[in-house]
Amino acid sequence: MVDIIHRISIKAPLAKVYAALSTKEGVAGWWTKETSERSTQGGSLQVLFRSPAGDELGRMAFDVVQLTANQDVRWRFTSGPAEWIGTEVTFNLSPAGDQTVVLFGHRNWREAVEFTAHCSMKWATFLLSLRSLVETGTGRPAPDDLKIDNWN
Amino acid sequence: MVDIIHRISIKAPLAKVYAALSTKEGVAGWWTKETSERSTQGGSLQVLFRSPAGDELGRMAFDVVQLTANQDVRWRFTSGPAEWIGTEVTFNLSPAGDQTVVLFGHRNWREAVEFTAHCSMKWATFLLSLRSLVETGTGRPAPDDLKIDNWN
Repeated sequence: MVDIIHRISIKAPLAKVYAALSTKEGVAGWWTKETSERSTQGGSLQVLFRSPAGDELGRMAFDVVQLTANQDVRWRFTSGPAEWIGTEVTFNLSPAGDQTVVLFGHRNWREAVEFTAHCSMKWATFLLSLRSLVETGTGRPAPDDLKIDNWN
Repeated sequence: MVDIIHRISIKAPLAKVYAALSTKEGVAGWWTKETSERSTQGGSLQVLFRSPAGDELGRMAFDVVQLTANQDVRWRFTSGPAEWIGTEVTFNLSPAGDQTVVLFGHRNWREAVEFTAHCSMKWATFLLSLRSLVETGTGRPAPDDLKIDNWN
């Protein structure tokens, strides 16, 4: 199994970072504006990505399989790109002085393909967007996200 | 073995991206200003990182083990943090319309540790610095690099 892992720290208390990761409104502020509840049951979210021109680039859905306040968030993807089905995204939070350290993982890829490399780079920029949202109130969720390559 | 991989594309011809990766002056423009030849023999470089205040944060040396014009650059680390010794950094370039796609790898980590996650995030920001250097003439090499966490 292959994991993408990143580490970033944010000048904010744990609770503020946790809120940005554990609520629909939070996720919509740094990942994609089109984040919606998929059903009223069980904590599933659907995310949709568009180009700046409005064309749909892709959509994914995931179950929120762990929410430990101010500590751990874990998602499991149930639909989206074939490579993502069954993978998990994890956020582990810990305090460090006046900062919160976020240990990010996108885990259990079946293999490392070129799309994995794209996603790794893209996640890094979304983590910068998360930090910007928490520290300044403004993130860069899709469709305003930084384009990193000819795929997105 | 664990690999960090990223994918980015740059609006410039292959030769211009290759120059930024294969010369001392290029590397000093996006990774760290303090890039120097380690010896007159065999293509070894030494890089030194400082904080904005001028304190030394670390230094590494690597052999340039492959230079295939406009296509592949490969470094092998011979000194630096213990986790880096023996690892390799690879840049694979390919054209895509008016862009150059860079497939980056930092390969052969013995295990995935928290420092790996830090380096993955940090490499992503240095690749943005590389893109900025090639597209605009100005990168963000250390000590002007984007700080991503409480480690650097």
